[in-house]
Amino acid sequence: MVKAAVLHHYGEPLAIEELDLAAPRFGEVKVKMKAAGLCHSDWHVVQGQLPLPLPLVLGHEGAGIVEEVGEGVTSVQAGDHVVLNWVPSCGRCPYCRLGRPDLCEAAARLTATGTLPDGTTRFSLGGKPVYQFLTAGAFSERTIVPEQAAIPIRRDVPFELAALVSCSVMTGVGAVIHAARVRPGSTVAVIGAGGVGFNIIQGAALAGAKQIIAIDIVEEKLTMTKTFGATHTVNAGDEDAVSAVLDLTDGLGVDYAFEAIGRPETMADAYNMTRKAGMTVIVGIAAPHETVEINAFSLPSQAKTLTGVWLGQGNPPVDYPKLLDLYAAGKLKLEPLISAVYALEQINDGFAALKSGQNIRGLIRFEE
Amino acid sequence: MVKAAVLHHYGEPLAIEELDLAAPRFGEVKVKMKAAGLCHSDWHVVQGQLPLPLPLVLGHEGAGIVEEVGEGVTSVQAGDHVVLNWVPSCGRCPYCRLGRPDLCEAAARLTATGTLPDGTTRFSLGGKPVYQFLTAGAFSERTIVPEQAAIPIRRDVPFELAALVSCSVMTGVGAVIHAARVRPGSTVAVIGAGGVGFNIIQGAALAGAKQIIAIDIVEEKLTMTKTFGATHTVNAGDEDAVSAVLDLTDGLGVDYAFEAIGRPETMADAYNMTRKAGMTVIVGIAAPHETVEINAFSLPSQAKTLTGVWLGQGNPPVDYPKLLDLYAAGKLKLEPLISAVYALEQINDGFAALKSGQNIRGLIRFEE
Repeated sequence: MVKAAVLHHYGEPLAIEELDLAAPRFGEVKVKMKAAGLCHSDWHVVQGQLPLPLPLVLGHEGAGIVEEVGEGVTSVQAGDHVVLNWVPSCGRCPYCRLGRPDLCEAAARLTATGTLPDGTTRFSLGGKPVYQFLTAGAFSERTIVPEQAAIPIRRDVPFELAALVSCSVMTGVGAVIHAARVRPGSTVAVIGAGGVGFNIIQGAALAGAKQIIAIDIVEEKLTMTKTFGATHTVNAGDEDAVSAVLDLTDGLGVDYAFEAIGRPETMADAYNMTRKAGMTVIVGIAAPHETVEINAFSLPSQAKTLTGVWLGQGNPPVDYPKLLDLYAAGKLKLEPLISAVYALEQINDGFAALKSGQNIRGLIRFEE
Repeated sequence: MVKAAVLHHYGEPLAIEELDLAAPRFGEVKVKMKAAGLCHSDWHVVQGQLPLPLPLVLGHEGAGIVEEVGEGVTSVQAGDHVVLNWVPSCGRCPYCRLGRPDLCEAAARLTATGTLPDGTTRFSLGGKPVYQFLTAGAFSERTIVPEQAAIPIRRDVPFELAALVSCSVMTGVGAVIHAARVRPGSTVAVIGAGGVGFNIIQGAALAGAKQIIAIDIVEEKLTMTKTFGATHTVNAGDEDAVSAVLDLTDGLGVDYAFEAIGRPETMADAYNMTRKAGMTVIVGIAAPHETVEINAFSLPSQAKTLTGVWLGQGNPPVDYPKLLDLYAAGKLKLEPLISAVYALEQINDGFAALKSGQNIRGLIRFEE
């Protein structure tokens, strides 16, 4: 039996339940969870915006210790510290073969099924299956994940910090260093000062950007952006963000603008504050039906590039250890990303804080 | 006195007039025109879609022989064969300094003034100034252009063919080799089989694309695309272009899709027929107020890139000679791009054919 936070009905609080957990099958790994982040993607599922079979164990940004491995597992063993990879790529689909595991088609399908790759789940309650979000089901004392979802990491980084790497850090830093490939001396604007936006900012600082303009409507969050390397802040509640960025860049616009909110209006703002031949990078997730409107004449005449990035275009087995090495070397800040720590039983308080905008990143710490 | 085709009133036929032509000033070059293409951009001005001061000598895609140079001119001399460069970059603005002469801000301003860089024009009629389109004013027996608008070329290419290089060939081939950087073995779709579309197709063939899908609604134009290297054609009047391209690519979409029409709907089609992590390149020019709608969720989740390209991201002094070398080496086809040749006096017939869709590229040949 494992204690887990279970979503039974959309829009309702999660229930703390004792679930049965089956043994790992071939190619699977049992992980004793130590920490798991409360991400907006989990919250979107609670609200029913991303329909999945219920009941469901949420949580995908997590870290823990391998307790047991199934047959055929070769890349981790019991005792290893691991970060969960919520895009467990198959290695065989067209995108894996193109070298883009972030866009794996098999992993994308699991986003809708709530199962492991074989179509089943290891959690159950009263003999009935309980599904697991993004194969992770991280809001549980223990979980079973595919081998490729358990990325071994160095043992000297606290689990709370390591957990963050799998989602918000990879997404933000990866958008800068993989998708945009920001070069030293560049000018950068970041719309949205949250868990991902902070990581875009510190990614841009790491890449040597000379000007990093943080944009939000909450002054406290803007103040925090300085910790991560922002050189300028713009409160979009007080002034027009596009005009402010043009003013700060001699009327040109920035070399790179990032959108980390997921709203079509701010995506268009990001495009409009990018200079000619510059790059706009969409990191924020809009609702599936929403559209962004771009001036059609400006595309050729200003030769701008609009792109999007998923999981920071990351390759988890390579990038998670690399990000933790950067942390250990003092080049990435992880501690200030955590705004609150909760016990599993307090998870609904954590989501309430997330919803209210109080939390940048709340984290579940599992008891011994 | 020089004979030129003059636009006096929007929407009316051009008038063949005898104009006074002043001598070249400092840094200017007098060119005896030999050939000039009839481009959609000229036609947009005739219709009043791109307002410019009138009366105006149109024409910007031209080639001729240098007859006289003003003081300070060092890169060309009398007798040189030249192709006109309709983006005569200043070398000093932020974009020239960034290495992007295609986006020169000074040249962009001349698009609206109809003058040479000093704000005046060398054509006059009855003592009053006659303006010159894109500094070129190529629909005239002789014209005066800035030195940087007269690109010296090899002498063994006929002027009719050389003229094409300055606009449709640079725009199409450059979109492929500079903006998209299509790699050998790629899959490519091209929407719009016209003067630019044909050059995108032959650029893709030159770059080693394995599959080149041409899309149009005119069967005769689709047949012509085979000459330039198209491997497949889709008549978008008969079937849905996006579905057809997905069918031809095992459901994935193409690595690169190019739009060469300038309509928001076909721009969105191009985006939707591009695979995940692929690139959509907008080459067609929409009206200034038009917007293209892109699904906001797909940008991050499919990690596509949407970009635009102006003048094929070309650097004329380098690229025009290079394109003519490729022609001379048998790697680019120029003859089949010309659909009709007219005398200057027949220019209104040429535009009528352009308007009716009969012409891919009509050309004015100047008499001796």
